[in-house]
Amino acid sequence: MKNFHYHMPVDLFFGQGQLQQLAPQMKRFGNRVLLVYGGGSIKRNGIYQQIMDIFAQEQISFWELSGVEPNPRLETVVRGVELCREHQIELVLAVGGGSSIDCAKVVAGSVQYDGSPWDIVLDSSLAQDVLPIGVVLTLSATGSEMDPMAVITNTQLNLKYGVGHPDFIPKFSILDPTFTYSVPASQTAAGTADMMSHTFENYFTLQDGAFISNRLAEAVLQTCIQYAPIALREPDNYEARANLMWASSLAINGLLKYGKDCPWSVHAMEHALSAYYDVTHGVGLAILTPAWMEYILDDTTAQMFADYGYHVWQLERSLDTMSAAKAAINKTREFFASLGIPMSLRQLGIPEDMLETMAKSAPKGGNTINGVKPLHWQDVLNIYKMAY
Amino acid sequence: MKNFHYHMPVDLFFGQGQLQQLAPQMKRFGNRVLLVYGGGSIKRNGIYQQIMDIFAQEQISFWELSGVEPNPRLETVVRGVELCREHQIELVLAVGGGSSIDCAKVVAGSVQYDGSPWDIVLDSSLAQDVLPIGVVLTLSATGSEMDPMAVITNTQLNLKYGVGHPDFIPKFSILDPTFTYSVPASQTAAGTADMMSHTFENYFTLQDGAFISNRLAEAVLQTCIQYAPIALREPDNYEARANLMWASSLAINGLLKYGKDCPWSVHAMEHALSAYYDVTHGVGLAILTPAWMEYILDDTTAQMFADYGYHVWQLERSLDTMSAAKAAINKTREFFASLGIPMSLRQLGIPEDMLETMAKSAPKGGNTINGVKPLHWQDVLNIYKMAY
Repeated sequence: MKNFHYHMPVDLFFGQGQLQQLAPQMKRFGNRVLLVYGGGSIKRNGIYQQIMDIFAQEQISFWELSGVEPNPRLETVVRGVELCREHQIELVLAVGGGSSIDCAKVVAGSVQYDGSPWDIVLDSSLAQDVLPIGVVLTLSATGSEMDPMAVITNTQLNLKYGVGHPDFIPKFSILDPTFTYSVPASQTAAGTADMMSHTFENYFTLQDGAFISNRLAEAVLQTCIQYAPIALREPDNYEARANLMWASSLAINGLLKYGKDCPWSVHAMEHALSAYYDVTHGVGLAILTPAWMEYILDDTTAQMFADYGYHVWQLERSLDTMSAAKAAINKTREFFASLGIPMSLRQLGIPEDMLETMAKSAPKGGNTINGVKPLHWQDVLNIYKMAY
Repeated sequence: MKNFHYHMPVDLFFGQGQLQQLAPQMKRFGNRVLLVYGGGSIKRNGIYQQIMDIFAQEQISFWELSGVEPNPRLETVVRGVELCREHQIELVLAVGGGSSIDCAKVVAGSVQYDGSPWDIVLDSSLAQDVLPIGVVLTLSATGSEMDPMAVITNTQLNLKYGVGHPDFIPKFSILDPTFTYSVPASQTAAGTADMMSHTFENYFTLQDGAFISNRLAEAVLQTCIQYAPIALREPDNYEARANLMWASSLAINGLLKYGKDCPWSVHAMEHALSAYYDVTHGVGLAILTPAWMEYILDDTTAQMFADYGYHVWQLERSLDTMSAAKAAINKTREFFASLGIPMSLRQLGIPEDMLETMAKSAPKGGNTINGVKPLHWQDVLNIYKMAY
């Protein structure tokens, strides 16, 4: 078990009706707010109006950064930074899923920095005096409501990079599962794939002795497998939406990686796709994950995948290790397919002759993704081809 | 799934060598320290000297509150409060297990209160301006290093009560598994029973829909079952000590109760024993837990215990519900016995004619313990008799 530092100071309010916490939480930081949201789903489902009512009642002054893209773009961050400076913003409030939250984080971190926010994406130590960040979550997926990470896309450079900073942890997050009732089936499925992928990235490591963290990861995976199908059948099933929402936070808030070295593999490969083709992140992950599993399956990794099969998919212990590993990988692919996710890169409209370009851009700042098995760009290309 | 508030702002440093964090963490709060510890095991195993060296090097002024009892007593708290006032203490640093930490918490909370610290045990809202609390953990058991709770014994009134306050969460906790290598077998066993009991108290509830929290609880239980026997056989097995140490924190830091109503039952029954006879807390819990399970086992609770058996003890699914429940209870008793814990109240030297007196004092401030099944004092007496 590796050494670690636990530090997760967010105040998180979970459950139906918790929007009542918004006013007292905002007032801890001021009453000049930048409201960050996406394409307008919060207007259709009524959450925007509820927040307007609270702003009016509490005499909150606010400015809007709307239209944040599913893969939030640098130019949107720049627009938010300008709004913060112009209006002396005291709190950046994201209402939405990971895109809005990630955008809010990098906005909050860039206000006191003179250069481009892209510099901060490349080197988070440049972020000083990060503005307080608040969250009202409307999509269970990225876990950004309870972690220090953000992912930003630079369309000019065709790069999608993650960045972490301790002050990117939201000061408060409000998680009301009923706010996800109106999430469409395709996004519910993609969000589940995203949180399962976060769990996989933490879970699949070799011999680090962090038994407890691996069992916790299996708890999160079992929760996704149990409730995603229910949420698809019954979008307003509270128990399903609630379990998925909390799973999305636990998958990435650190819990599953304590005591482990987790060199994520699949996210880097997916980010290269999204940077070029605006792929839905969770869909890209669902397609790549089983291909990656198959690609790295050998005698050194078979036990790891077999254990996953025994513990998560309740495979018979009588199955030998390699057979169990293969069965677990197949179960994974079948599960994602059962959620209605298109399971090949071809179906996403990505041209085959672009695979090599994307594969070369996947390793961030080097030639190799340092995963369970190191992946050179040719390995990435092979995995892309298997997933095509 | 019930609503909840997550708030766990401790800075926790886990792993071998993390004592290097002590100096920078202390300096966040000042350099006048009350050092709180127990019967002197930290002098025998060298941890005391390591801390003395750090104090000398960093020019920390310190005063000692030593000899904290295994069930920490009100009069020791009073002594600590006086030291804090006399020497303008800025940080209360507990070095030890739950006893020292709990004592440190109530000391820290009572310095600014004019009356008896017992008032604060009865009503934590009386605690104002709680002094910062730091922890160096040397025993995996109570989880006090990562929770807002403390338990104090009033020997004059024969009462042992728990008390919680948000500012009783330590500002920092240092968890080095090697610091538990010298913990004797009996305390390793009792500590494991304590953390398993915390997990049980959170886990055994009826129909709250918190699927994910129950799966997480099973992860903690599996960890205890996996590693306690190894730690007994090989006291300096790092992997075993590390997994147990982190399990002790996760069992009670809130993770396992989010989304649930957890009306603890067995702790109240055990506290009544400890208040009269200074029973080792974990031993009392290990004895009472299987008896309590058997006492409340009926058609309404059988599924709950059966699920525990299927998921934690890998009982065959072909077993019917009631048989699985009974088998799971037996497995629990056998496991505690296998750790060398004396499994009857008689063996602890408690006189049978005192059971009724203790049973009447078990429900705190009322006639009933509001557990999975409400327990009137006669029920408590029945359970004591089953465990005798």
